[in-house]
Amino acid sequence: MAKTTKNEIAPTRAEDFPNWYQAVVKEADLAEMAHVRGCMVIKPWGYGIWEQTKACLDEQIKKTGHENVYFPLLIPLDYLEKEAEHVEGFAKEMAVVTHHRLVARDGRLVPDPDAQLDTPLVIRPTSETVIGASFADWIQSYRDLPLKINQWANIVRWEMRPRVFLRTAEFLWQEGHTAHATEEEALQETRAMLEMYRGVLQDKLAIPVIAGEKPASERFPGAVSTLSVEAMMQDYKALQAGTSHYLGQNFAAAAGISFADEQGQEQLVYTTSWGVSTRLIGGVIMTHADDNGLRVPPKISPYHVVVVPFHDKDGEDPAVSAYIEGLVQELGACFFDEHAVRVHADTRPYRAIDKRWQWVKKGVPIILEVGRRDMEGDAVSYFCRHRFPHKALSLSRGDFVGGVGALLAEIQGEYYAEASERLQRHTRTDVADFEALCDHFEATKATADFVRGLWCESPQCEQRLQPLAVSIRCLPFEQERREGACLLCGAAATKEAVFARSY
Amino acid sequence: MAKTTKNEIAPTRAEDFPNWYQAVVKEADLAEMAHVRGCMVIKPWGYGIWEQTKACLDEQIKKTGHENVYFPLLIPLDYLEKEAEHVEGFAKEMAVVTHHRLVARDGRLVPDPDAQLDTPLVIRPTSETVIGASFADWIQSYRDLPLKINQWANIVRWEMRPRVFLRTAEFLWQEGHTAHATEEEALQETRAMLEMYRGVLQDKLAIPVIAGEKPASERFPGAVSTLSVEAMMQDYKALQAGTSHYLGQNFAAAAGISFADEQGQEQLVYTTSWGVSTRLIGGVIMTHADDNGLRVPPKISPYHVVVVPFHDKDGEDPAVSAYIEGLVQELGACFFDEHAVRVHADTRPYRAIDKRWQWVKKGVPIILEVGRRDMEGDAVSYFCRHRFPHKALSLSRGDFVGGVGALLAEIQGEYYAEASERLQRHTRTDVADFEALCDHFEATKATADFVRGLWCESPQCEQRLQPLAVSIRCLPFEQERREGACLLCGAAATKEAVFARSY
Repeated sequence: MAKTTKNEIAPTRAEDFPNWYQAVVKEADLAEMAHVRGCMVIKPWGYGIWEQTKACLDEQIKKTGHENVYFPLLIPLDYLEKEAEHVEGFAKEMAVVTHHRLVARDGRLVPDPDAQLDTPLVIRPTSETVIGASFADWIQSYRDLPLKINQWANIVRWEMRPRVFLRTAEFLWQEGHTAHATEEEALQETRAMLEMYRGVLQDKLAIPVIAGEKPASERFPGAVSTLSVEAMMQDYKALQAGTSHYLGQNFAAAAGISFADEQGQEQLVYTTSWGVSTRLIGGVIMTHADDNGLRVPPKISPYHVVVVPFHDKDGEDPAVSAYIEGLVQELGACFFDEHAVRVHADTRPYRAIDKRWQWVKKGVPIILEVGRRDMEGDAVSYFCRHRFPHKALSLSRGDFVGGVGALLAEIQGEYYAEASERLQRHTRTDVADFEALCDHFEATKATADFVRGLWCESPQCEQRLQPLAVSIRCLPFEQERREGACLLCGAAATKEAVFARSY
Repeated sequence: MAKTTKNEIAPTRAEDFPNWYQAVVKEADLAEMAHVRGCMVIKPWGYGIWEQTKACLDEQIKKTGHENVYFPLLIPLDYLEKEAEHVEGFAKEMAVVTHHRLVARDGRLVPDPDAQLDTPLVIRPTSETVIGASFADWIQSYRDLPLKINQWANIVRWEMRPRVFLRTAEFLWQEGHTAHATEEEALQETRAMLEMYRGVLQDKLAIPVIAGEKPASERFPGAVSTLSVEAMMQDYKALQAGTSHYLGQNFAAAAGISFADEQGQEQLVYTTSWGVSTRLIGGVIMTHADDNGLRVPPKISPYHVVVVPFHDKDGEDPAVSAYIEGLVQELGACFFDEHAVRVHADTRPYRAIDKRWQWVKKGVPIILEVGRRDMEGDAVSYFCRHRFPHKALSLSRGDFVGGVGALLAEIQGEYYAEASERLQRHTRTDVADFEALCDHFEATKATADFVRGLWCESPQCEQRLQPLAVSIRCLPFEQERREGACLLCGAAATKEAVFARSY
């Protein structure tokens, strides 16, 4: 137990937040940057968290009437050229495929000059254009609407300053795309899917968020409006955790997506798109990890309970192993969050104390340590990650098994409560004018609280934020007040906004 | 019911098998070729079958101790250069990324000449090289072995003659990669994963297969041996449905994957890789579809039961809708193959008769048609796809609900039995010599039965098959006889082989 007195992660959050983040990713064995520039390798524990997150999202996406599909990775250049604003927004950062064959030259492989593509292809930075082309084929009449699809896919956007999970050249995401007969229905869909994200983030990832509309400057290229959910990290910076776009008829006009209405009149559809990505794992880390490593909210943890066998020095004790096997069976028959409890016995040939620390750093919610003494007492010794470090707790086997679901729910609840309390405590509503705003963000450099304040919605006065490296994260749906002077220019305000530094 | 007398798919299998295949893909709304050359769009019903297939495979992959991960899409050229045979095999068909930015020139987008990559990247045609580089980092000691991972990913191999599901420039697959301390363990893994594929194909996809080793000429580039499962399509051609490769120390040597053994000696690991792809959906179609469209084996069908409401002419009858709602609830509480029965009420604004035919073509195992008469009799009318066309059957609601699991199992069983009977009936074991073999494959052109016969394992005599467009599919594990003369050259044979035309 000696190690419980010092922290496993160096540097600590307080010492150096960005390097603490990298250290958690490494120590929890979540992922690593690949040898390929800007790309990452997602390792089993990181991918396991993504699989759980995916399952939560996929269930909601299907429950709300969307069907999964798969569209091509490669997009012809002329698709991108059709939607002018969209081109503008994405022209700068794409992987371009120009050849379809390699040849050997002087013992090296090079692109075959005879196999140059007539038209280069880009690796999808997002799929509105290629999906729009199919929508135009698929939609004929009002009976084909609404059309509601989703895909789980990989995306490439060349990033100059990559950062694991948060900003990588390749990432994984889901992108929903829908077409509707009316503007009203498309607007409802845009909002409903943002609310779906809010629900999954809060209920499953234990990340409280502020939902709202982005200012015009931060809209998706080609969108009429962009909604987002914004989360607060432990350095009080904002993370845009998910977005939902109302695209109006912009993409419909560009791709020719029209339908015959009930009167036989040809009309353009209204489209939406919405997505979340592996960036969410970065959000989980920066919300819940501590100076001993990651803490995974139980609902998205690949394992809920890990059992570390404690054998005496003379090697494996078959009676203890059998006791553990029985325990694993019993726990696996329990339920949490409508799923069987995910329990794993770690029988690898490492010292028990080292294994305990590996699971602490990975953030598994409950670690059981079971040895001869536990067996003899028909009991278990355990640690709860949310309260770690603490002395081992002990319960009778029956009580532990009977209470495991409730204990996991308690841990889940505490993570959410802790993050909510942080969001509330570190949001200032008393910043009165631009001078005070400057003072606030300059005085607190890397760790400035969010500011909720009024804005006149003028893009000109929004530019005054740039030297501060601060942006308007969103105009929250839940407007607490909107009358008074704009924080930036002093003119009459129209909306309450959230000002923050961000990832 | 007029339509039951003619076939929904034109041409029929007998008339034109290749075009029948394309027609089934279209009429069952499974997928379509994309506007991007050689790529496909997988539509909801096709993707739903893939999702079910994935779930079956993923469960087995995890149950056998493999963990899911994700590796980069893009591979630097020098990785491919390391394993010489591997380069040879893949050098001809890859998408090459040469630029990382587009610029606008004269109103068009072009690759930015200032953003040319120092080293081109290829889109993964398979991931041995990039995964090998990480294995070299991750593996230090015997305690880290075996290392058993898997990824679900998209793959690009430029195909000159693309064919939906069977051969597309981009496809989806899983690729397992493992590293072991001993040759014996790696060989066991190679075989075990092939047996896993055999199990899923036979039990879930209802596709009987012949499992065996490929001849040297058909090995994966860089492999020591390649095992495969081979299925027979309805035109009696073979489809290689899954492969498992024993890579020996070839990739370990190329990537420097070594470990310190228990004596502290540095040793190279032994690796394996194995994969199946969306090609399996092509296999499902060519095994089970008939002249009325697809027939999906229940265990991988996105819906087990679809309910089509039959309303009288004066519009929706709320009592009938309520009756259907109750029925859907009851069916959804039943179990088949350890999962809740997947039931869907198709309430779209189309005529009931048209909806029935859509579901027949999609191949949903059971179609219920429920109207006022059924409601009044507390009954259901239904069709079973495996016996279609047939007159509507009728059962009391209670009997139908109580028996739905058994009915689905019966349908699953019949599909497997039918395909097994075909494989047996269309495998000839009486072809005596090369002349008879030529006669067999020349006489029956497009639809020649498999031939099981003896071979001396000489690559020279294997070449005699080329003019026949026939290949040795595998040397089955279950050798029925191996003594006698080689079918190709008359010399003493060493193995029994399967000769066939193939996809």
